[in-house]
This record gives sequence, C-alpha cells and structure tokens, in this order.
Amino acid sequence: MVFLGIDPGTTRTGFGVIAYSNGRFSPLTWGTLLNENRPDNLLVASIARLRELTSEWQPVSAGVERLFFSQNKTTGMAVGEMRGAILICLADLSIPVFQFTPQQVKLCVSGHGGAHKQQVQAMVCNILKIKGRIEPDDAADALALAICAALAHTKGT
Amino acid sequence: MVFLGIDPGTTRTGFGVIAYSNGRFSPLTWGTLLNENRPDNLLVASIARLRELTSEWQPVSAGVERLFFSQNKTTGMAVGEMRGAILICLADLSIPVFQFTPQQVKLCVSGHGGAHKQQVQAMVCNILKIKGRIEPDDAADALALAICAALAHTKGT
Repeated sequence: MVFLGIDPGTTRTGFGVIAYSNGRFSPLTWGTLLNENRPDNLLVASIARLRELTSEWQPVSAGVERLFFSQNKTTGMAVGEMRGAILICLADLSIPVFQFTPQQVKLCVSGHGGAHKQQVQAMVCNILKIKGRIEPDDAADALALAICAALAHTKGT
Repeated sequence: MVFLGIDPGTTRTGFGVIAYSNGRFSPLTWGTLLNENRPDNLLVASIARLRELTSEWQPVSAGVERLFFSQNKTTGMAVGEMRGAILICLADLSIPVFQFTPQQVKLCVSGHGGAHKQQVQAMVCNILKIKGRIEPDDAADALALAICAALAHTKGT
C-alpha cells in the first residue's frame, strides 16, 4: 500500500511517498511541491502538483502535519492557508487524512517527542533505507509523516 | 452581474451575494456558511456549502478578506485554513478573486479605513437598501466585500 506525507510550509511544502507492506517500508519519491514567492499562485500551483502526485501514486491515506500555532502570526496564517487547501484537495479525492503534531511525528520515528531534526532525518533514512541525506528537510519531515500515516492506517487508529 | 463576498472565520464564515448593474446594488442573499465546532468537518462542509452557493448564483467574481495576522496565533492558523480552502475552491471554479484587507473594505464602503463595525453595518444597509440590521456581523462584512469586488471588477482593477 502507498502512503503520502505532507509537511505544509509558507513557501515550501514537503511531500514524501512510500510503500508499506508486511512491516517493510520503501521510499518511492519525495521533494517539495513548489518553491516560489507568489503566495496566491503558489497555493494553486502547489495543489495542482499535489493532484498530479496523488493521481500517479494513488495513496490509500495521507499524513499531514497539524500545527496549532506558529512562531510568527503572519507565518501561521500562510501555513494555515496551505493546510486548508491541502485538506480540501485530499477530501475531494476521498483520501483519508491522519494529522500529526511535530511531537507525534518525532515520537513515532525516533522514539521520543523532543528529537532534533538531525535525529528525525537519521531515523527516516534508516527506516526507509535511504543512503545519504534527504534534501530538503521538509521532504524528510514529509516522509516521516508518511510513515506515521502507514502505521496509523494499518493499526486502524 | 452577480458578486460574492466571503469573510473567513474560525468557526463562522460570512457570505454575501449581491447584484450590481448600472451603478445600482441589490442584495440577493447572505448568511454564514456553517457554524459548528468540528474544525476538520467544518472545513469540508463549509466548502460544500460554498460550492452550492456559487452553483446557484454564478458570481462573476468574489471578494475575500485578506488578513496578514490575527490577534491570536492559533486563531490565525484556523482562519488561514478556511481562507486556503476557499481560495482553492474559487480557483477550481475559475471565479476571479479580489482580496481586500479589513481597512480597504471599511474605506470602500464608509469612506475611511478606521470605521467601526456599526458604521460599516449602517453603510452596507444603506448601499443595499436593507432595512433593519444584517445578522450576523460576518454576513454584513461579507456583503461589504461583495460591494468591493463589484467595484474592483467593473473598474478592471
């Protein structure tokens, strides 16, 4: 079964697609939806790319990062816009969504909720047997979200 | 020509639909998309209602409130999610969107950017010839946004 992970950001939204079967994970593809500085077009163009990805890979469910607040009010609004657009896109495609806080993702892949970015990166590489570094960090976070979604989906939680 | 106004909120999103022709405005309908306390379903259900409204009234363009920050970080994120979902919905329907800050809306309908809610309410009632009070305030704000969209659309700005 194929699972999608999405880490929504203001200008860059990470994605990761993995396969999970019989307790084994395999990486399929990862990257960022787009990286531009035109907020309105960015939203529409990012969702167009997300639709291409879901059409190509047909994920059975998706993990999306849940954020309750941001360091910065303006950033929070922009991340919220990307999250809202992604959630509606996935709902329209009837792809079930599991939402995880950054702490839940860290706990899931590294065993503790306070793990550093480097530890998450290392654990994601280890779980998915990816050699070298996953670039950018947003894609590593998205792959971690896909792993969380696979575990939640198959546990029926 | 028919114009739509939308005032995105965390739990309540105001809408207003007006007709504008030969310099005359007429109110068609207004209200709130939904008023519930289930954030994820709220987003999907609100967009379903928005699609019904656009299908019924076929607006030529829409005015959506643009917010750069919120009083509260968590609220900013939630309003951002509703805004992102609305913007993608309207883009999918090929309905052009004009975005206005609260100050621009106040300036447009009342003549000054620092107008109070009561003054905006009074001016919207006056412009649209609505007797009595528009309930709730979110719907009055949405009607003001529809007026702004009509003026922006017909000026070609």
